[in-house]
Amino acid sequence: MSALARKAAENLKKIRASKPLIHNITNFVVMDTTANVLLACGASPVMAHADNEVEEMVDLASTLVLNIGTLTDAWLITMIKAGRRASTLGKPIVLDPAGAGATTLRTNAATAILFQTWVNVVRGNASEILSLSGQNGATKGVDSMYTVVDAVAHACRLARELGTTLALTGATDLVTDGRRALAVEGGHRLMPYVTGIGCSATALIGAFLTVDNDPLTAAATALAYYGVAGEIAGTKATGPGTFFIHLLDALYALQPDELEARCRITPG
Amino acid sequence: MSALARKAAENLKKIRASKPLIHNITNFVVMDTTANVLLACGASPVMAHADNEVEEMVDLASTLVLNIGTLTDAWLITMIKAGRRASTLGKPIVLDPAGAGATTLRTNAATAILFQTWVNVVRGNASEILSLSGQNGATKGVDSMYTVVDAVAHACRLARELGTTLALTGATDLVTDGRRALAVEGGHRLMPYVTGIGCSATALIGAFLTVDNDPLTAAATALAYYGVAGEIAGTKATGPGTFFIHLLDALYALQPDELEARCRITPG
Amino acid sequence: MSALARKAAENLKKIRASKPLIHNITNFVVMDTTANVLLACGASPVMAHADNEVEEMVDLASTLVLNIGTLTDAWLITMIKAGRRASTLGKPIVLDPAGAGATTLRTNAATAILFQTWVNVVRGNASEILSLSGQNGATKGVDSMYTVVDAVAHACRLARELGTTLALTGATDLVTDGRRALAVEGGHRLMPYVTGIGCSATALIGAFLTVDNDPLTAAATALAYYGVAGEIAGTKATGPGTFFIHLLDALYALQPDELEARCRITPG
Repeated sequence: MSALARKAAENLKKIRASKPLIHNITNFVVMDTTANVLLACGASPVMAHADNEVEEMVDLASTLVLNIGTLTDAWLITMIKAGRRASTLGKPIVLDPAGAGATTLRTNAATAILFQTWVNVVRGNASEILSLSGQNGATKGVDSMYTVVDAVAHACRLARELGTTLALTGATDLVTDGRRALAVEGGHRLMPYVTGIGCSATALIGAFLTVDNDPLTAAATALAYYGVAGEIAGTKATGPGTFFIHLLDALYALQPDELEARCRITPG
Repeated sequence: MSALARKAAENLKKIRASKPLIHNITNFVVMDTTANVLLACGASPVMAHADNEVEEMVDLASTLVLNIGTLTDAWLITMIKAGRRASTLGKPIVLDPAGAGATTLRTNAATAILFQTWVNVVRGNASEILSLSGQNGATKGVDSMYTVVDAVAHACRLARELGTTLALTGATDLVTDGRRALAVEGGHRLMPYVTGIGCSATALIGAFLTVDNDPLTAAATALAYYGVAGEIAGTKATGPGTFFIHLLDALYALQPDELEARCRITPG
Repeated sequence: MSALARKAAENLKKIRASKPLIHNITNFVVMDTTANVLLACGASPVMAHADNEVEEMVDLASTLVLNIGTLTDAWLITMIKAGRRASTLGKPIVLDPAGAGATTLRTNAATAILFQTWVNVVRGNASEILSLSGQNGATKGVDSMYTVVDAVAHACRLARELGTTLALTGATDLVTDGRRALAVEGGHRLMPYVTGIGCSATALIGAFLTVDNDPLTAAATALAYYGVAGEIAGTKATGPGTFFIHLLDALYALQPDELEARCRITPG
């Protein structure tokens, strides 16, 4: 898959050259982390959620990232408003269904965004993604309900059903647009011990969508970049605190060449 | 006090085995820090404050942590709603009266939560805790108003009056349920220079309450765990920035055996 | 300029002695970062934005810091309420017009705060500051529109027009009250890769205003302190993650003597 590795390197190079403005409407817990991850990558983050500001900000931005953690009805309304504007302008949208499947508010919110805006990529863990299918699996345990083969087949079906690209992150990440599927290796066992790591992956996919029109390869190359940076950070970390700091350093320092050499994307 | 040291070790072991879901309704400043501290400990944090979500989240969670920093009336209402649900279900509640005594809103909010929900532990500094007694001490200076002996007697009386367990943190932490009192040694002089350190201690007490039915020992062992991790972090830090990062690493790496060996809980 | 270097050292010493309470109404992304920067400096941060709390908090605090990132109309109203209270009491106000010039909401909000409260210092980048002049330059590219000489002349004129002190931060910082101008050297090339760095500079100016009645020297010495700490952090950093952590350590560890020796403030 050297073509995909080369694509990852090219995408990263293009982001650093263009410094795209990424408009995030995201949860309070991860705003700081998300902004730092985007900056380290070379993108330019902005957070704005006011009803009378989001459309103007979408006009300025290259991508819209929506994340439903710490949601309220009022925020959902502005997310949809921003999303409809982005859809009208043909700007990419990434959705992070943080906590979907756990509460009615979040499951319904993710579904509402999916049906009222044109979402290019949804990034979540297996249980969050599964909750979008209308099948009611309890959030706990879902991760282990499927064999890998089952998961791929199920995700492909769901991507077709929802008409979007799905990025399921975990020990191995799986990206599918319903027709094609890619597996991405990388990352580090400390990642689940740092808050905002998943949400920041979503934002990075947003950055990669500004330079790559194919949501499948944009998502896969973003996750590959994150995964390689995670591996590098893992060699320097003595726990989750130092891990995150070195992850930011690695995201910043990682050069396209090294990304191409270490990138592991394979057909899923 | 080797029984209490053993208890601390057991509680930590149980948290890591059960990965309890801790529902936080907390202030904007410390959400990220609190989530990272809970993750490093081995617990699973969630933040949710929407009026139409908090009860469902309480149903899923093992503990509710309420923190009144950056409060508004709307947030107070959902805190009480969540707290009443937790009280009905018999799930533990920890209250952090952040800034109580400084403004009317916060002092009244802390009192309202205490009287309308069943709070198991209140964690604050001396002036915040004292403000709950209805005695009007100015917030500034209160910390030095009492000798240690006075503080113990006063806190015991207040715990009885409020019908809850009080955890006063400072150079030495004091925990009392009105009948018994424990002193906890540990921590590091850099702790006051990191935001969210106190608020995260409150959340850790929430995690320990999921595995220890006695609020007194749950609070004391949580603070002992935090204190030992703080001591370890202190040996690696060159200032508040590196201190916090190493605190997360230490919270993650600290094993029950080492906690038992280093834990310093004594009758207060 | 050894007089200004001595002033910087004196101001830092006074802050550490008085631990002034800094009331911030700031954006969600940078609350944690801002609080940590203020604590590392030796000040005492508090965040409070409730309509029924802000005036009481202003009464307790020594300075008010207003930052219009992640703004909504409701927050703007409480910012102005807090600002009017501070103006009445003669307490200093610092404004960070984060994102002014990008959207109508933010540009108008910055103007509204400037005209309805008594702002002592505005801290922003060149495009944010320029947007306050009513001249419509696109935010992108403005930074390079002027030669340095032009920028100084323009900023002086704008400071007179607005009746406030302006602190334009960038590779070299420029502070002017319309009559006098100072240039501040320092900092590090990684600073733009960390979120909240600019917003935290604004908050530091707030802290320095509590010990220095002259907004020009308060702002310049605060920025000089930040710049020296940034230089120290830069020698230890391997990227933006480690940079920020070492910045906090450096802010904490920097002694008045060393600040005086390394401080570079010159007539602008």
